[in-house]
Amino acid sequence: MSSAEVSGGAFTSQPAILFDLDGTLVDSVYQHVLAWSAALEEAGIHLAVWRIHRRIGMSGGLFVSALGRETGRHLSSDEVQRLQESHVREFLKNHNQVRLLPGAKELLRHLSQSGIPWAIATSGSDRSAGPALKMLEIPQDAVVVTRDQVPFAKPDPHLFLRAAERLRVQIQNAIVVGDSVWDMLAAQRARALGVGLMSGGYGREELETAGAFRVYEDPADLLDHLDELGIRFPRT
Amino acid sequence: MSSAEVSGGAFTSQPAILFDLDGTLVDSVYQHVLAWSAALEEAGIHLAVWRIHRRIGMSGGLFVSALGRETGRHLSSDEVQRLQESHVREFLKNHNQVRLLPGAKELLRHLSQSGIPWAIATSGSDRSAGPALKMLEIPQDAVVVTRDQVPFAKPDPHLFLRAAERLRVQIQNAIVVGDSVWDMLAAQRARALGVGLMSGGYGREELETAGAFRVYEDPADLLDHLDELGIRFPRT
Repeated sequence: MSSAEVSGGAFTSQPAILFDLDGTLVDSVYQHVLAWSAALEEAGIHLAVWRIHRRIGMSGGLFVSALGRETGRHLSSDEVQRLQESHVREFLKNHNQVRLLPGAKELLRHLSQSGIPWAIATSGSDRSAGPALKMLEIPQDAVVVTRDQVPFAKPDPHLFLRAAERLRVQIQNAIVVGDSVWDMLAAQRARALGVGLMSGGYGREELETAGAFRVYEDPADLLDHLDELGIRFPRT
Repeated sequence: MSSAEVSGGAFTSQPAILFDLDGTLVDSVYQHVLAWSAALEEAGIHLAVWRIHRRIGMSGGLFVSALGRETGRHLSSDEVQRLQESHVREFLKNHNQVRLLPGAKELLRHLSQSGIPWAIATSGSDRSAGPALKMLEIPQDAVVVTRDQVPFAKPDPHLFLRAAERLRVQIQNAIVVGDSVWDMLAAQRARALGVGLMSGGYGREELETAGAFRVYEDPADLLDHLDELGIRFPRT
């Protein structure tokens, strides 16, 4: 065995963590769901609310394709643009109801203090993610990748790949933490390890079926079980 | 074998169907979730929205016990009363956003025309269920059992037992259709057959784990697959 094999090559003993935002660190999924519902109704498109919930976190383009299939209606690029704008407007209208998820700030602070690299990678735009990032009070130099910085959002792997690149870590050495099956699919496509949180409203079994190695309730629960992910700086 | 055994005793070849209301026939779960969230915030109680979603459809009393465990706060019966009232007030505020689920009316109409007994059994009160029942345009003599008519709501079996009794069918011969694990638990406790719908936002796997014999997307999907439940009057 060569020394490179013994040392694990590009693998280090400490993984990096790449977080989704909505439903993972911030309790905003249900407000996003009803904002989409209102935007669609305004455009004369009726779609059951649970179907919207199951699409939250995926790229807007894919969401619109799914819409086309499920409502039988083709949307022009102008209509798509207007829909996305009215979703953001509806969402920001009720943003004062949005709270951080339990343990979100503490988890990020603990990782920073332990020297574990972390980043946030969201399918949301700079504009819709802005207020949540502010609530998290993350350091100025934290790595945040939004929809505006990559060609394709989740479940394409680009958001997580870009986040790993900016942290200067190998994606194979990263843990992706997210609340939706799109996060788990993007994690698998990026060849990262997926870990699910139930705080976006998906059930444990659904996340496991999508490839989650473990599922926790919320950031506080993850913080309490970091050792289960092989993270050598558990909270003391 | 006696002739009673051959004929199946109390079992007839045509089952009755007992429906839950919110999330099963009416697309109202997400509005209920955010109405509870607003009512709790008003009372100074912060609970992540997904935890509320996972409690929708269970009895108010159990919901409040779960709240006590998850927030560490004991609520007086006055506080519980006020919470329930402010939930109904918040819900009715946004009731104009609530729609029927696809196929709900058609499914009930098809069952009536085929002579298959059906009833609605909801953990909701007469007051909160009223607008949804009106939208369904069900016949005057349809059997509807609400929280106000039984000592315990779901997951206790009382609502479904009372509905079967009023239809004059054996509960063992009934199929319970619902969108939440509380419906599936109540079905199991009542010794009825549980069938899940995904239209309340629970995932397929979660409903199956809770005992659903089959899981369909929504009432329209169920209507298309009645034969799979042994119902001998499929839609033609």
